[in-house]
Amino acid sequence: MARLPGLGPRSARRAVLWLVKRRESDLPRLLEALATVQERLVECETCGNVDTMNPCHICADPRRDERSLCVVEEVSDLWALDRSKLFPGRYHVLGGRLSALDGVGPEDLAIGSLLARIDKGGIDEIVLAMNATLEGQTTAHYIAERLEERPVRVTQLAHGLPVGGELDYMDEGTLAQALRARRPVG
Amino acid sequence: MARLPGLGPRSARRAVLWLVKRRESDLPRLLEALATVQERLVECETCGNVDTMNPCHICADPRRDERSLCVVEEVSDLWALDRSKLFPGRYHVLGGRLSALDGVGPEDLAIGSLLARIDKGGIDEIVLAMNATLEGQTTAHYIAERLEERPVRVTQLAHGLPVGGELDYMDEGTLAQALRARRPVG
Ligand SMILES: [Zn+2]
Ligand SMILES: [Zn+2]
Repeated sequence: MARLPGLGPRSARRAVLWLVKRRESDLPRLLEALATVQERLVECETCGNVDTMNPCHICADPRRDERSLCVVEEVSDLWALDRSKLFPGRYHVLGGRLSALDGVGPEDLAIGSLLARIDKGGIDEIVLAMNATLEGQTTAHYIAERLEERPVRVTQLAHGLPVGGELDYMDEGTLAQALRARRPVG
Repeated sequence: MARLPGLGPRSARRAVLWLVKRRESDLPRLLEALATVQERLVECETCGNVDTMNPCHICADPRRDERSLCVVEEVSDLWALDRSKLFPGRYHVLGGRLSALDGVGPEDLAIGSLLARIDKGGIDEIVLAMNATLEGQTTAHYIAERLEERPVRVTQLAHGLPVGGELDYMDEGTLAQALRARRPVG
């Protein structure tokens, strides 16, 4: 399943687990439905999204802000962010994250195509929306460095308390980060 | 247990649950130990912390920065934050949060004593470290308003992705907040 277009190993693991947990009765129907869906799905050549059309609905939507580009690890991250409906721009899917352990280097990620999109012009802001994991943050720092010479504003997702987060349930790292990045009220 | 000094209803609920989950064999020993501990514990008259001395170890420590005061809902929040060892200042425990549902109003919280501490002078920054819950944030906004006229800088904990947070495990509210509060890299 990791070879489905745009699905990285993490998403694939989850999909397989989810399938395995289903009763046998559900499985054949699911597999059939999946096969149909998979036939219709294509990878967007612009952003790496997986959709029923190429360019995808997001890249093809003229109401989307072309000047703002949100860089994510996986297609599932793009979908998660887009559900929040707060980002008005477009996306770029890396197809993974830098990982010494898994032997994933910069050349294995869609970084060249990201730079090419930026160099075509018209993009003002790059939002690095990597996971708040060690590998995600390593990837974000690497990309930020590659973008240093380019005329774009580079931002990253805020880190701190998640919505509903209670202090004595949070790990120390999150509390430390929330304190360090504290900001003026109002 | 909610009447133990400094323990709010939330902490009390957790303590009771934890006790109930223990086997009966452990319970008598635990109750005995608790009784001994409780006898030795006092509430700090300065900050509301629960400690074996009054003023507490934090208020009595001359190395602690007197100019920075971190306001928390419960004693358990103070302990959680202090474990991270990142805050160099002192604390103020409200003893709860504003709650229409539980009938908790401003007069039920240690807000008067907070204002009195500030009015004595020497405090530059108030860090509002409420939980990222609806009631916590309502409390933070209320206190921020009460502090508007006073010559202190008011900050609050950062909100966003927790450490280790993966985008497609986060709720939409957290993703929306992380996007909204995105910040420059570097
Ligand atoms: Zn696309
Ligand atoms: Zn104290």
